[in-house]
Amino acid sequence: MRLTFLGTGAGVPSKTRNVSSVALDLVTEVGSVWLFDTGEATQHQLMRAQISPRRISRIFITHLHGDHLFGLPGLLCSRSFQQDTPPLTIYGPPGLAEFVETTVRLSASHLTYDWSVHEIHDGEGLFHEDGFLVRTRLLDHVIPSFGFRVEEDPRPGELQVARLVEQGFGPGSLYGQLKAGLTVTLPGGRQVDGRDFLGPSRPGRVVAIMGDTRPSSGAVDLARDADVLVHEGTYAAEETERAIKHGHSTCVEAADVAVQAGARRLLVTHISQRYGPDDLDRLADQARRVMPASDVMRDLATVLVPARG
Amino acid sequence: MRLTFLGTGAGVPSKTRNVSSVALDLVTEVGSVWLFDTGEATQHQLMRAQISPRRISRIFITHLHGDHLFGLPGLLCSRSFQQDTPPLTIYGPPGLAEFVETTVRLSASHLTYDWSVHEIHDGEGLFHEDGFLVRTRLLDHVIPSFGFRVEEDPRPGELQVARLVEQGFGPGSLYGQLKAGLTVTLPGGRQVDGRDFLGPSRPGRVVAIMGDTRPSSGAVDLARDADVLVHEGTYAAEETERAIKHGHSTCVEAADVAVQAGARRLLVTHISQRYGPDDLDRLADQARRVMPASDVMRDLATVLVPARG
Repeated sequence: MRLTFLGTGAGVPSKTRNVSSVALDLVTEVGSVWLFDTGEATQHQLMRAQISPRRISRIFITHLHGDHLFGLPGLLCSRSFQQDTPPLTIYGPPGLAEFVETTVRLSASHLTYDWSVHEIHDGEGLFHEDGFLVRTRLLDHVIPSFGFRVEEDPRPGELQVARLVEQGFGPGSLYGQLKAGLTVTLPGGRQVDGRDFLGPSRPGRVVAIMGDTRPSSGAVDLARDADVLVHEGTYAAEETERAIKHGHSTCVEAADVAVQAGARRLLVTHISQRYGPDDLDRLADQARRVMPASDVMRDLATVLVPARG
Repeated sequence: MRLTFLGTGAGVPSKTRNVSSVALDLVTEVGSVWLFDTGEATQHQLMRAQISPRRISRIFITHLHGDHLFGLPGLLCSRSFQQDTPPLTIYGPPGLAEFVETTVRLSASHLTYDWSVHEIHDGEGLFHEDGFLVRTRLLDHVIPSFGFRVEEDPRPGELQVARLVEQGFGPGSLYGQLKAGLTVTLPGGRQVDGRDFLGPSRPGRVVAIMGDTRPSSGAVDLARDADVLVHEGTYAAEETERAIKHGHSTCVEAADVAVQAGARRLLVTHISQRYGPDDLDRLADQARRVMPASDVMRDLATVLVPARG
């Protein structure tokens, strides 16, 4: 479970920051990558990050502003240039289906794989599949903008090997079955229930990724006890007026949300192009005064989300 | 008058070639730049070429395939992030207006400048303004694809200075007015008509830029006696079957069109991503056997179109 920031800039691309996109690499967990937003040239950034478009099985669009959306048609087409491309599900606000249908139809694009668009609503549980529960909340922006909570199922507790040995079950192939919580019948007919030898289940990881927003109760809800919160921090602390005017957050406001939610780590993205590389330490420092475990992201930065416990 | 190739690849972007776009720099002539096609990330390439989006006054879309079109919405929005952006006219096949209207509307983009979409038809004279005549022809592709001929008005002949001196009109400020073909009244009341002292008018330059196509009579017509023909050459000579199947041309077929039209120079673009940097000399050699003044374009290559005569 690893996040790769494909585009960390706001509004328009600059020489150092492309427009918004984040990849959540779940190749180890479910064999695929999920994308959150697809600003223009996301497929170019995927190429630089060495992530194959055919690996992407789900795309989540937070809102329909162009800097989060306009890379979607090109990415859909590029997936068709690859062999044996698996199905794709796209989630996003109402209007997304019309956007995809119109751009695909008018460009006479023949997509070679199954695809569907699922338009989302506040508070919806999008799916619970492959060991992950994903739900969404409406945030607070100038147009409907959503956040997503990706919650890994709890993992089974550790096998209590000492107790097994104590009761006469030496190490062997049955350990794998017991660890999976299965009941094993021994040669003599005796049955052992793996669940009796497992410690308490361990919580799964939680990643919460927000679209453009003012600080909002939706974001706090989605980021509750998250391992990682990805939140926009378009402006520096002294630009709160501007943030309010445009429906964005400052880096400090993003940090406030992280603290309120009890998130373990904050990754700030969607940085206004007014800030150059030299400003980033200042923005990070502002956030860290409120939430020490804060970082301001750069394009192509990768962050591992370690297993809990 | 200068061409800058922003994207010279076919279908999908690669590490060395972006998808299609060519800029025609007319800053000296009319104070602006015209774009032909806007594949995804054209605005990124404009940034690299140091061409400001607000400089672009006209965009011509050859056809609606995504690799020629999907950079348009982002470019339209980025023009709005600039100050005092002048109006924009977009020309392209039927369906283009719906594409622009839908993508702008669904993304809630507020364009700050006047813009209009002009859907084009075979044989149409698009405009004759600012010293340029532009007309279009339908080409031969798997969907309607157009080419454009940009024809500069003839320039006035050179001022015949020797004859002026001979008749007693020494060098001075009146030369500028005479050169413009004006009638000048001298201090003694004598009138001199500049047109009497101008040599024969000199032909303007012609640039012909084609969309994706098989070799076609439309392309030959548009490229007649052109200074520069920009024609696709997606494949090498030995891939004619593939070119036919996909409605494209080989480099040699592009060269044939240039020769038939009597064009002075051929610039080959829209190179299949199957060809790497090492293949380009071979492709260029194939074209040059038919049309010696041929070059295969690379991204960000710039070609000056020198004045005639």
